[in-house]
Amino acid sequence: MANFELMRKLAQPADRRIVLLVMDGLGGLPHTGDGPDYGKTELEAAHTPNLDKLAQQGTTGLSNPIATGITPGSGPAHLALFGYDPVQYDVGRGVLSALGVGFDLQPQDVAARGNFCTVDEDGVITDRRAGRIPTEKGAELCKLLSQIELEGVQTFIQPVKEYRFVLVLRGEGLSPELPDTDPQEIGARPLPATAEVPQAQHTADLVNQWIAKAKDLLADKQPANMLTLRGFAQDPALPKFEDVYKLNAAAVAVYPMYRGVSRLVGMDIVPVEHPVSNEFHTVAEHWDRYDFIFVHVKYTDSRGEDGDYAAKKAVIEEVDEALPILLDLKPDVLIVTGDHSTPSQLKSHSWHPVPTLLWAPKTVLPDTATAFGERECSRGGLGTFAATDLMPLALAHAERLAKYGA
Amino acid sequence: MANFELMRKLAQPADRRIVLLVMDGLGGLPHTGDGPDYGKTELEAAHTPNLDKLAQQGTTGLSNPIATGITPGSGPAHLALFGYDPVQYDVGRGVLSALGVGFDLQPQDVAARGNFCTVDEDGVITDRRAGRIPTEKGAELCKLLSQIELEGVQTFIQPVKEYRFVLVLRGEGLSPELPDTDPQEIGARPLPATAEVPQAQHTADLVNQWIAKAKDLLADKQPANMLTLRGFAQDPALPKFEDVYKLNAAAVAVYPMYRGVSRLVGMDIVPVEHPVSNEFHTVAEHWDRYDFIFVHVKYTDSRGEDGDYAAKKAVIEEVDEALPILLDLKPDVLIVTGDHSTPSQLKSHSWHPVPTLLWAPKTVLPDTATAFGERECSRGGLGTFAATDLMPLALAHAERLAKYGA
Repeated sequence: MANFELMRKLAQPADRRIVLLVMDGLGGLPHTGDGPDYGKTELEAAHTPNLDKLAQQGTTGLSNPIATGITPGSGPAHLALFGYDPVQYDVGRGVLSALGVGFDLQPQDVAARGNFCTVDEDGVITDRRAGRIPTEKGAELCKLLSQIELEGVQTFIQPVKEYRFVLVLRGEGLSPELPDTDPQEIGARPLPATAEVPQAQHTADLVNQWIAKAKDLLADKQPANMLTLRGFAQDPALPKFEDVYKLNAAAVAVYPMYRGVSRLVGMDIVPVEHPVSNEFHTVAEHWDRYDFIFVHVKYTDSRGEDGDYAAKKAVIEEVDEALPILLDLKPDVLIVTGDHSTPSQLKSHSWHPVPTLLWAPKTVLPDTATAFGERECSRGGLGTFAATDLMPLALAHAERLAKYGA
Repeated sequence: MANFELMRKLAQPADRRIVLLVMDGLGGLPHTGDGPDYGKTELEAAHTPNLDKLAQQGTTGLSNPIATGITPGSGPAHLALFGYDPVQYDVGRGVLSALGVGFDLQPQDVAARGNFCTVDEDGVITDRRAGRIPTEKGAELCKLLSQIELEGVQTFIQPVKEYRFVLVLRGEGLSPELPDTDPQEIGARPLPATAEVPQAQHTADLVNQWIAKAKDLLADKQPANMLTLRGFAQDPALPKFEDVYKLNAAAVAVYPMYRGVSRLVGMDIVPVEHPVSNEFHTVAEHWDRYDFIFVHVKYTDSRGEDGDYAAKKAVIEEVDEALPILLDLKPDVLIVTGDHSTPSQLKSHSWHPVPTLLWAPKTVLPDTATAFGERECSRGGLGTFAATDLMPLALAHAERLAKYGA
């Protein structure tokens, strides 16, 4: 936070280029089964000659996304990598969900995350997730509800996954200051929308009208015969990369969520498709136009969430193999990290600090790491550091920060 | 900061002596040329049997002067070593400049840093640094301007280097609350002095009178035919070592700037001349009168700024050779560190954390370091720590801190 203010004060333009390569969910835990990978994490087991060389020539450490012991979602984890304290800059769940489905959120829109649920004849919730209806069914119901019209505002509804969807209201004078309508328990009725502040009353009224119409349309759609809404939020109007860091920045990311978070901090979004090598070629195509390029690789996280150790390791190897495409661009600073850990052993995000390497041929003090892996990084020159320190480190090594004081 | 309040509360007198030996700009980067020093920093390459032994017997780490990635000036970097959060205790540039030339600043004085500049016939700045006039020329112009008299206040002007000087106003009722007169760009006119608060109006008027007279005197002194002022500041009245730490402290430093910062925190200034061995003998002469002696070695930084790897290494060796003079005094705690890094590869201050060793024969837990160097310190027992933690560590190892709580 102090750092963030210092960045505003000290950042200055320079003809130096920075690449931030994020392998989503990079950190892992040791393999516990038989075979040659026993005792090694996915990253430690992967054959990564290029990354290992960068680790030898650069400096390494472990990045702590939010705070010690805290498992982050991808939204706050990326904000932290971008240098924004994710606790201070709290992006509402409605906004993150809208970004996650690639919705083009406008500054005055109010977004909420929705769940289809099951209610009995008394309107009491019997299943908060409507029996986890399949994604196609959720999409069909969203289409049905998109007929709803309200006076004076536009409404948008988009499916997310299974029973989850996003609702967006667009119009004049809307406020996100509404508590959740989701009572968060079985045996209670969905709550009416209410206003936390007087100026939200208009929005609460509109939401209640929309819920009433939705209830009618869903009446015979058992088990998804009702819905709840939560995380009402507006674009948080974050400070932008250009203002804070004096960086002309772009994001190369396949998934809408990461494009969305990048757009929130003012990056240009470059169109790109999978696979990783294609992402890297896209960086090359836009090389001359940007000071800073964020490249996001999704499938390390996806395979970790699947609990598929070998597949996660293979994604890491795919990145390593494609890496020369980035290195040929001769970036002044290249950072390779993750937004959080996703050990395939846990099949979920985790709190474990994330292996990170910083390579900057002119300005880095190499540490003693011989390879890129969790245990090597834990003894690295950067130590265990807050993820929000990465941007100051990137700018420093790109000689884009003025001296503090005389 | 939290630490600072704890120090006030817990520090207590004891018959234990602490030496803080600061080699300015100590940290470096690896040599990139051929020869036996290839891949080693200046400190790693230097032959330092005494420092290495202290590192083996003591504990080591890397000190972060201001914040991750931030390159400090010497003023804030020394405040941090003295335990003062340099962002909270912001010493104005005018004060630092006055201290830097050894000016005996009084509590009510207002100091500003000045630049000679070039203006065209319309008074528009065409060169913010007056063609970087030589230092002798700057001194000559300062002498000319020292004739200026103002009613009710004394003025002092002293040359710094090339086009830079310091202006000090001394008198009743002065305020430093003036914005810079330097527009910070070519093509603009120098700004008049203005008052940020009503009580600064008198000072602004005096400064404008002074500028008008200076302008007349400089009219034919092309390219230095005008000047700008910035960083108006007063002695920040910092808490003193005696109050905060219960330490009777002295500074042994050859350069005015470091004496000045030491005086700001309440240290006695001991007269001393170069070389290093003489500085150390001076410590010995004053040994019985102080609990804490700060010794400053300047030339590690100077040779780093010159880009002279071999010369910086030689200064480190000079310090090592003289070290027995300090060790013979049998200090209870000896800390050897730098205020910041000045890699000769970069010819400038840098953000890299600073190798630090803490030796305290009775109370230290030795780590596994085998020598005093950046890479050894990066795996040391102190980890990478905030420079403001050094004073608590020094006091603790000198058993000068009471227990916190029952």
